[in-house]
Amino acid sequence: MTSTEKNISPAVIKRLPRYYRYLGALKQRNITRISSKELSERMKVTASQIRQDLNNFGGFGQQGYGYNVENLYTEIGKILGLDKSNEMIIVGSGNLGQALANYRDFNESFGYKVVAMFDVNPKLIGITVNGVEVRDIDDLEDFIKHNDIKIAALTLPQDQAPKIAKSMVNWGIKGFWNFAPVDLTLPESVTVENVHLAESLMTLTYNIRSREE
Amino acid sequence: MTSTEKNISPAVIKRLPRYYRYLGALKQRNITRISSKELSERMKVTASQIRQDLNNFGGFGQQGYGYNVENLYTEIGKILGLDKSNEMIIVGSGNLGQALANYRDFNESFGYKVVAMFDVNPKLIGITVNGVEVRDIDDLEDFIKHNDIKIAALTLPQDQAPKIAKSMVNWGIKGFWNFAPVDLTLPESVTVENVHLAESLMTLTYNIRSREE
Repeated sequence: MTSTEKNISPAVIKRLPRYYRYLGALKQRNITRISSKELSERMKVTASQIRQDLNNFGGFGQQGYGYNVENLYTEIGKILGLDKSNEMIIVGSGNLGQALANYRDFNESFGYKVVAMFDVNPKLIGITVNGVEVRDIDDLEDFIKHNDIKIAALTLPQDQAPKIAKSMVNWGIKGFWNFAPVDLTLPESVTVENVHLAESLMTLTYNIRSREE
Repeated sequence: MTSTEKNISPAVIKRLPRYYRYLGALKQRNITRISSKELSERMKVTASQIRQDLNNFGGFGQQGYGYNVENLYTEIGKILGLDKSNEMIIVGSGNLGQALANYRDFNESFGYKVVAMFDVNPKLIGITVNGVEVRDIDDLEDFIKHNDIKIAALTLPQDQAPKIAKSMVNWGIKGFWNFAPVDLTLPESVTVENVHLAESLMTLTYNIRSREE
């Protein structure tokens, strides 16, 4: 049984990338094992939460030894699907799209690979960003179908995003990393992860102000 | 009594920017009023949730009329502190910092103003991004103190972010919009809004894969 066949709560899933990040940092510092107590102090969650979370995936700890950092890192990576290469495209090649293409953090470390970028703007079509060519959005359908692309970052203006996302689903896209400030209405089978930057900034300023009062 | 003096749950606060975005879109289309039923269909939350949420702030609806879009937009803007100008700085002027400086969506529409950018890289110091000069990070302390800056976007590498954030708190920063893939440990009085891009992308791919199985 692969670990993903179990029914794991979304809250646990949300925490996995954070475990992965912490373990990656430990690995970089050549730390080979860590107790759940130490890990819990660093991550500011309880040790029992860590044990519970990791038990969902078979539990990787050993009594009296703690966790093998390398092992746990690799296993969580597998659960997150990072052991396979994740090809993705970026639709919308303005500033934000280009920043994502240039963003090493996920691009290199985690097996994601931006294989193409798209735009409608003739000034952008043909340029190369971090080795990736910006193509005409008219070629999007062909590219998705021929290359069996499943993941797309959407960095288009809000008025263009919903319509094109719908078409992209028909062409084979299974998941959107959506930066357009709009909620996409798509079939249940499609995954959407929203990054609504303006909303997150508003939440920040609200919280700053309410603490001032 | 200002609305922010009441005790409003974080869940409601999280939804406010979304109301604000929807109302902004209605306003742009010259729609002047909307019933809570219509608004609820668009936003995919129940009408009673909308009424409850907005009642936290005195309730802006009128029986049989619905909501005045312009009014409600303005009032929620005030609650979010968008009626005042929000000056902010960007610390870290690489691709992501530059994308934020160029990102019109919050820059122009919502009263946020990026007043300075900072970096350690001599190649970046002195360049201008969307009219904003990139300064030497050595000038950061002076700039924050002299200009009474409260909000900072952190787009630095993970190893530099925690230390500089701590100093920035001493210099007067009250809130961080944190893009560095690291959890900041700061005093309780400081607000941190994390945008951990790599983690959000990992959540997306996990969810795509688990639906495939």
